Amino acid sequence: MPINKSSKSKTAKTAVVLFSGGLDSTTCLYWALSKGYKCMALNVQYGQKHSREVKSARTICRNLGVELTEIKLNLPWLYQATSLVGKGEIPDEDLNTIKNHKRIPSTYVPARNLVFISLAASLADSVNADAIIAGPNAIDYSGYPDCRPEFYEPLYKAVKEGTRKGVTGRPIKILTPLLKLSKAQIAKLGKKLNVPFGLTWSCYRGGKKPCGKCDACKLRQEGFKSAGLKDE
Amino acid sequence: MPINKSSKSKTAKTAVVLFSGGLDSTTCLYWALSKGYKCMALNVQYGQKHSREVKSARTICRNLGVELTEIKLNLPWLYQATSLVGKGEIPDEDLNTIKNHKRIPSTYVPARNLVFISLAASLADSVNADAIIAGPNAIDYSGYPDCRPEFYEPLYKAVKEGTRKGVTGRPIKILTPLLKLSKAQIAKLGKKLNVPFGLTWSCYRGGKKPCGKCDACKLRQEGFKSAGLKDE
Repeated sequence: MPINKSSKSKTAKTAVVLFSGGLDSTTCLYWALSKGYKCMALNVQYGQKHSREVKSARTICRNLGVELTEIKLNLPWLYQATSLVGKGEIPDEDLNTIKNHKRIPSTYVPARNLVFISLAASLADSVNADAIIAGPNAIDYSGYPDCRPEFYEPLYKAVKEGTRKGVTGRPIKILTPLLKLSKAQIAKLGKKLNVPFGLTWSCYRGGKKPCGKCDACKLRQEGFKSAGLKDE
Repeated sequence: MPINKSSKSKTAKTAVVLFSGGLDSTTCLYWALSKGYKCMALNVQYGQKHSREVKSARTICRNLGVELTEIKLNLPWLYQATSLVGKGEIPDEDLNTIKNHKRIPSTYVPARNLVFISLAASLADSVNADAIIAGPNAIDYSGYPDCRPEFYEPLYKAVKEGTRKGVTGRPIKILTPLLKLSKAQIAKLGKKLNVPFGLTWSCYRGGKKPCGKCDACKLRQEGFKSAGLKDE
């Protein structure tokens, strides 16, 4: 039986889920399905080196029977602005520096989550969806300003005031169920929801196997270790 | 002498100007230059029928010596969601219905200005620009929710909290100099700033000549008429 059972109901709530194919957004997608949302997954490619993650996204959506929309952006300024795009090296990161938020790492992509939520809002307002669901987390996050509640609170109001649904009907919700969870808590939630960890992809370097050294790999490793879970 | 004089100064303020090549955004660009900003113009194409306007944008930027960055988005959901994209007819509009904001017209593009400002914020945060300048107007507007102060106020806060500049330096300003002007006041401001009206393009239908009947044409005609100015 497909997990996306709610798609058969005419009254099901619908959600646009920002979906990279990584651990966090996959946990979000499973969370949304468990809450009864009929989900539309939205994958945004912006030239990131780890575009390999979209393969994970496709596999996971196919297995779930969830519609996946892929958008490719070509934003030329990102080639100089982030190590995730272009030829620059992605450095090994020092997890303590990251977790203490002492600096914004080179993997920061300027205004990425703002662009992602904007595209999700455009889709949600177009199809009259009830919610946007995204997977930032502010606890074990990577020092990115757009992974904090201070960003999402005014953004919710902007989406409400700037969309058809917001001014004529029920505003589009922005749900960020992982925002205040640690990576360990996310791993535990994923386990509870039967997330197929082995199908998800986090590594920023996008090689054949995760490098184990970039901040995405390190945060993931530490999360599973703290949760006492195997990443498989 | 190029108008963009400030580009020679190392201390010049810099701005990303959202620039369609229409009357309003051209007036914004001239306004920004008159205020001493070194300007980078950002043109976003989303499949609109009036993509002819980009030719205006290119000509105007070339004449001013302003760098123009063009972004092409392919957002498949817009084909069903707005008459500006896809095969649907753009209706003649009833100006009174529009101006009394009785309904949101078919030319509304879901979350367009949110997407535009997000892309501008990504560019501005990447190049350390001081401001984003955009040309919505809330008085003689077309009934679009994302042309109102209620939308821009929380958006400014979201951009502040969601960008590197906002959390580590001086937040990126969002300037909307036309927001509270009527179309007549915009025409007068453009006249004062020597905007080349004849080079700008507003018509939604994007034919060889403006149709004179869509809401973009009607609002423009009425603005010039009220201002007692010729549109040339």
